[in-house]
Amino acid sequence: MDIAVEVIETSSLGDRSYLASDGQVAVVVDPQRDIDRILALAADRGVRITHVVETHLHNDYVSGGLELSRVTGAAYVVGAGDEVGFERLAVRDGDELRTGGLSLRVLETPGHTHHHVSYTLQDATTGDVRAVFTGGSMLFGSTGRTDLLGPEHTDALTHAQYHSVRRIAAELPGSAEVLPTHGFGSFCSATPTSGHASTVEQQKTGNPALTLAEQEYVDTLLAGLEAYPAYYAHMGVINTRGPAPVDLSPPRPVDPGELRRRIRQGEWVVDLRDRTAFAAGHLAGSLAFELSTNFVTYLGWLYQYGTPLTLIGESEDQVAEARRELVRIGIDDLAGAATGELAVLADGRPLRSYPVADFAALAAARKERAIHVLDTRRNDEHAQSHVTGSQHVPLHELADRLDEIPEGELWVYCGSGYRASIAASLLDREGHQVVLINDDFDHAAESGLT
Amino acid sequence: MDIAVEVIETSSLGDRSYLASDGQVAVVVDPQRDIDRILALAADRGVRITHVVETHLHNDYVSGGLELSRVTGAAYVVGAGDEVGFERLAVRDGDELRTGGLSLRVLETPGHTHHHVSYTLQDATTGDVRAVFTGGSMLFGSTGRTDLLGPEHTDALTHAQYHSVRRIAAELPGSAEVLPTHGFGSFCSATPTSGHASTVEQQKTGNPALTLAEQEYVDTLLAGLEAYPAYYAHMGVINTRGPAPVDLSPPRPVDPGELRRRIRQGEWVVDLRDRTAFAAGHLAGSLAFELSTNFVTYLGWLYQYGTPLTLIGESEDQVAEARRELVRIGIDDLAGAATGELAVLADGRPLRSYPVADFAALAAARKERAIHVLDTRRNDEHAQSHVTGSQHVPLHELADRLDEIPEGELWVYCGSGYRASIAASLLDREGHQVVLINDDFDHAAESGLT
Repeated sequence: MDIAVEVIETSSLGDRSYLASDGQVAVVVDPQRDIDRILALAADRGVRITHVVETHLHNDYVSGGLELSRVTGAAYVVGAGDEVGFERLAVRDGDELRTGGLSLRVLETPGHTHHHVSYTLQDATTGDVRAVFTGGSMLFGSTGRTDLLGPEHTDALTHAQYHSVRRIAAELPGSAEVLPTHGFGSFCSATPTSGHASTVEQQKTGNPALTLAEQEYVDTLLAGLEAYPAYYAHMGVINTRGPAPVDLSPPRPVDPGELRRRIRQGEWVVDLRDRTAFAAGHLAGSLAFELSTNFVTYLGWLYQYGTPLTLIGESEDQVAEARRELVRIGIDDLAGAATGELAVLADGRPLRSYPVADFAALAAARKERAIHVLDTRRNDEHAQSHVTGSQHVPLHELADRLDEIPEGELWVYCGSGYRASIAASLLDREGHQVVLINDDFDHAAESGLT
Repeated sequence: MDIAVEVIETSSLGDRSYLASDGQVAVVVDPQRDIDRILALAADRGVRITHVVETHLHNDYVSGGLELSRVTGAAYVVGAGDEVGFERLAVRDGDELRTGGLSLRVLETPGHTHHHVSYTLQDATTGDVRAVFTGGSMLFGSTGRTDLLGPEHTDALTHAQYHSVRRIAAELPGSAEVLPTHGFGSFCSATPTSGHASTVEQQKTGNPALTLAEQEYVDTLLAGLEAYPAYYAHMGVINTRGPAPVDLSPPRPVDPGELRRRIRQGEWVVDLRDRTAFAAGHLAGSLAFELSTNFVTYLGWLYQYGTPLTLIGESEDQVAEARRELVRIGIDDLAGAATGELAVLADGRPLRSYPVADFAALAAARKERAIHVLDTRRNDEHAQSHVTGSQHVPLHELADRLDEIPEGELWVYCGSGYRASIAASLLDREGHQVVLINDDFDHAAESGLT
């Protein structure tokens, strides 16, 4: 039996979905909200999706599973432990799902969530175990974080996670491929993952749940947990109730007058262009969320759900791509979008701008005058190393701590320039005189700033 | 420029949808509710759908256009005249839509509905008109019916239809392909259509709106209008409000006890199997709607929307296919489905059955004894010819006229046996002693019965 498993990457969230097939029928695991990618892949391979399975109710994205199952006529498979607001095929430990030459066996693996399940993938004819879809349990050199359901559950879930990962290692052949949903930069991973493929055997020497004693694993995991995006709070609710179907259609076009009015009303008008283009010229009061890898993580982290949101993009394609990212975390209703030349969108009014610099320039400038420097990275990054004399306000706390930021020239940095550009736009909107340090933090040490 | 237009047939409704593409981008015209077929075709051809266009708010099916546009990120294009409950790109006469090498021009063609539009398809580079999507205006040798919006509008719409079809013929080159949505058995066609392809030039000699004088066309069309399926009344409402996304996922399984309880409560339990299999053995109180070409038309015609509906199928595939047909007309919520051996589903209780015969057998039996014969065809069919001495109750009136049906042996016929089998099951449920004439009506004359 020829069983193929294909990966559908969602690199902006550090997540993977899977399509496993025998050439005729297919099973989809943990699909993201934008199901068109899965549908296109299945059509391209000429396979019919008969089952859509979830390893857990996700906290970092809105699932596309419900809609995918409905559009394709597939059974929608969810662990029986979770009470949900939609029809599904509820499965328990030991249940088997068969379709064509594929068989999936359910393994209850609590830890990342209470009712998390993994699915082993077997050849239905021979029973050979090919792989295991581990969701947020066994990751590549890590495990799924255990604090997303609230601090009162974290300790118990961490112990459960340890035993779940150990159970996977004990019950499955070493040759089985490990196919996790999280990792690859996902905040759902307790610690950074390593590599892009692994077998169960390889994890035995590289996974903390398999190399450490239980309490050591628990202590290490808990000590390493850092802040996660605030938008996570909304995902469980949406996924439990049953997400509304996706809407990727183009936002309503807005004209310069409407842009101005929306900004004046304190709404979010988000500029998707390159951070240096934004620095060189932008609408007063607009916010810089460059459309690159971390766009949706940080926009979701800072955005108050329900606030009217309007996009500015350099093209309709850029707006479409941003919309795709936003619906993945349940930001469905956009007030509209504008594209084209900034000068046109400004309707004759002056654009705002601020300088862009690097750490070397900061070092040089500091020799001449006193400069206030703002570090917008997370606590763990700041604790490792930071620019001497800098003020530290993590980006996700900035909006609530604006009164701590002094007047005058203000240089803003992060690890790469991405978060700093968001912070700079927030501060620019407040009238601060900002300079964006668009540079890799490694260069701070090289410039003698740390 | 290589422009390809592909047809997506929905033969159960006599409708066509289209996918036009230049090899890179595509426009979809009048998609049915089950959008997976369109998505698979687009993926197979490797094209991106940028526009989904409607010729009108449909009265015979629930549109998949809104969901298709949302899943794909395409613009959703609807004639500006119709007030609708969703975001769309509203277009008016003369508007042009461009995508890749394709251009669509909007032609307001009222008649089938007030705000019906057609779209000419041009090569965007050369301006050459390749085809025209005529929806329910110019059909193959016919025109769309004009009485679906109520009798008070019919006369004006019929005159409008005449001028719309004439306008298409006058403004477009004779070589343009005519690509209608209705025909092919659709009740949306005023009269039966002929053929499966046509140019504008060919219609000039074969379309009543182009060969007849205006009043003659109007009189002929009005005289030919027959009853249309009652479910049409729901479609306009659903399409105007914006249809809910499709749900093709498997219905909940029901067991024999639940089947019995649902039948006892007077709910609809519909048996999808072959009409002769039903006659040979079925659950007492279940209804025969064989899953073949006319399934959804007649089920929709007789069904009271909102009544709990449970399916019995010989396989899960058969249930899935029935569900697909039902969602096309907005029957979304199924109480459940049962599959497998009837004897098992009957749970030990006796099956009911009735004899199957043909017109020759009726002729023979009539020579021996008095037999009551029921004609379940439409008025126009009955007027043309019928079995001498038969009672005539069109199928769609039967449920309201059961008190007119006498006791005793009752032979039931229609044009082919399909409608008669539905009628027989309705009468069997009431305790009548029925015989199903499963035969082509042509054989009635051959047997000397007319």
